[in-house]
Amino acid sequence: MISVEDATQRIVSALKPLDAETVEIAEAAGRVLAEDAIAKATQPPFPVSSMDGYAVRSTDVQTVPARLHVIGTSPAGHPFNGKVSEGEAVRIFTGGVVPDGADTIVIQENTEADKTHVTVKSGAKSGQHIRRVGLDFTRGNVLLAKAKRLTARDLSLLAAADIASVFVRRKPTIAFAATGDELSRPGEPRKPGGIVSSSGYGLAAMIENWGGIPRDLGILPDDADAIASIADEKADLLVTLGGASVGDHDLVQRALGPKGFALDFWKIAMRPGKPLIFGKLGDTPLLGLPGNPVSSFVCAILFLQPAIASMLGTNIMLPIRNAKLAVALAANDARQDYLRARTQVRDGEFFVEAFAVQDSSMLKILADADSLIVRAPNAPHANPGETVEILPLC
Amino acid sequence: MISVEDATQRIVSALKPLDAETVEIAEAAGRVLAEDAIAKATQPPFPVSSMDGYAVRSTDVQTVPARLHVIGTSPAGHPFNGKVSEGEAVRIFTGGVVPDGADTIVIQENTEADKTHVTVKSGAKSGQHIRRVGLDFTRGNVLLAKAKRLTARDLSLLAAADIASVFVRRKPTIAFAATGDELSRPGEPRKPGGIVSSSGYGLAAMIENWGGIPRDLGILPDDADAIASIADEKADLLVTLGGASVGDHDLVQRALGPKGFALDFWKIAMRPGKPLIFGKLGDTPLLGLPGNPVSSFVCAILFLQPAIASMLGTNIMLPIRNAKLAVALAANDARQDYLRARTQVRDGEFFVEAFAVQDSSMLKILADADSLIVRAPNAPHANPGETVEILPLC
Repeated sequence: MISVEDATQRIVSALKPLDAETVEIAEAAGRVLAEDAIAKATQPPFPVSSMDGYAVRSTDVQTVPARLHVIGTSPAGHPFNGKVSEGEAVRIFTGGVVPDGADTIVIQENTEADKTHVTVKSGAKSGQHIRRVGLDFTRGNVLLAKAKRLTARDLSLLAAADIASVFVRRKPTIAFAATGDELSRPGEPRKPGGIVSSSGYGLAAMIENWGGIPRDLGILPDDADAIASIADEKADLLVTLGGASVGDHDLVQRALGPKGFALDFWKIAMRPGKPLIFGKLGDTPLLGLPGNPVSSFVCAILFLQPAIASMLGTNIMLPIRNAKLAVALAANDARQDYLRARTQVRDGEFFVEAFAVQDSSMLKILADADSLIVRAPNAPHANPGETVEILPLC
Repeated sequence: MISVEDATQRIVSALKPLDAETVEIAEAAGRVLAEDAIAKATQPPFPVSSMDGYAVRSTDVQTVPARLHVIGTSPAGHPFNGKVSEGEAVRIFTGGVVPDGADTIVIQENTEADKTHVTVKSGAKSGQHIRRVGLDFTRGNVLLAKAKRLTARDLSLLAAADIASVFVRRKPTIAFAATGDELSRPGEPRKPGGIVSSSGYGLAAMIENWGGIPRDLGILPDDADAIASIADEKADLLVTLGGASVGDHDLVQRALGPKGFALDFWKIAMRPGKPLIFGKLGDTPLLGLPGNPVSSFVCAILFLQPAIASMLGTNIMLPIRNAKLAVALAANDARQDYLRARTQVRDGEFFVEAFAVQDSSMLKILADADSLIVRAPNAPHANPGETVEILPLC
């Protein structure tokens, strides 16, 4: 058995960034940059007013009231092309270009205007209410670094910098199959002694969230030939669900051996989820997740998520944070434990409580959980009020 | 001016849940339930083994070693149809149905088998390694309540309960238009004194994240007729970007008045984002976001997000949490403030630091931020180490 950290490291280093492609920014949310994004424009490209008012020379309003001749207007998108000289002002609006000669904006609340003139009633320092050229960024600036996963905010930033499309990693296709003679799809007739195959639905949604393209290969029977057929699938990563142990009916390793499967490791010192297979089937990496739905979910978060990130040329930091125990925890054994738990704020403090039953088949408790308590191998008994690490779930 | 809380409340109560539709669970991630999801099956539907081993009668293994006659096998999906009587055992595998007569599982590590018999070397309590009928849930249980937004885990839970499709709210269509003579699209020729329209790209990505369908109506010039044309658009909610003030060039209210726009409110005591319009254009609610990109982003989080949630028949709790100030903050004025900030963990403690410049035009700082510090109206000066509320950004 290897540790969670070692397993993650081995998976991440075995997976290389995919090739890249150009996509329009309107389609780029969640995509990962394959190169730095460099500003194609300076923002603002000229000094602009941040208020409605009058563009004036600050020297003209040192003594107030000051009556100035209004020689034009400068609304956003309609710059005034003349120059503001001594004793002159230009009516300006938010986003309007500050005309030559003017160096400050008097907000309209501090003025009184008639048809041809404005009376400024309070002074204004040079530069006031003016957004200088390049306040936000300058052409040539690195706005977003290679390997950044694009947020909504990033898309607006790219647009403002005149970047209409970006070079991003191709989305990895993750083909997955459930294995087991007992499985059928929801709504279909049950097999004798059968249950409904469930893990794939959550897995597909997670793969999409993590930036991959899920491809559901369906349910494979406990039959070596059927399982071996996944060797023919085109995918950037193959995932099997179930059959990862070495029991008489856990066939994944045995079925894939003749197809050239090279095992890297298959046992991790963790709970839930000990029997996890990782290796290569020809050129295609293969991750064999455990069959129990809670185990497969936790292993997907811990191992599939960084695997996808690695193919996207980036990495993920699990958002581990601290919480106080609401209820004691028993000492842990040698396996790293991930306990289904719920958090709550009490008197301004952040508490977490593990569910009393932690069976790895129980999906209702997994759905009700909002976090996993992470217990290190051999962690001692922990009392209420002690701080533990949690991994919030989405 | 009204408070952020009042504005939110008025928007949320003006927006009613949309109609609902049936979708397959494979397509239901992120959708909101329009009715409780009731289990159509019991899980497990029969007692199953959680280990590989032998199904026996616990009374037969009170004294060990005990030699038992192996009368059959029960792998997952292939139940043994006979009964385990005194002195008998059935070979069983994880997920296999526990045969009649047996009440415990002896794991294979504690046995020695030959062709016809198994020798049990350590005892087993009744019920051990058996998942009882309904351990996870029972047919008829409410698994997920109406108004729940479906997570990946929920989809697996629904599948396990034999629920192939769910009744969920229709996704609201949010049609949005930017207004301003100064705006052009990225990659297109600039207008004189013009800048690139940017807010819509981030807005569209957020609308999708929040469960809506974004529809980009493009850029409208500062012209009353052009702005009034949005009254003809079919949408569940109309959003304008910019033009929300009452300056000579802020046309939204004036342009829509003749089209029957009924204003609810238009000024909020907050920064960034004071000029926000909310009202109804005929039967369609309309939200007028400020033109500055940071203002429109913050207002979208605070007002558009709950608006969409309301149309989905649910509500959202902003994930406000505490952090310690890394750098002092000046006293706040009468407007609720949302400061762009970055968090970091130092010596196990969670700190936050506001950017020194908070101009509402600055997209680079918004992209670099990972949270907003929320400052109540008239909050006093705060020293480093004091606790403040933050809103993490995605």
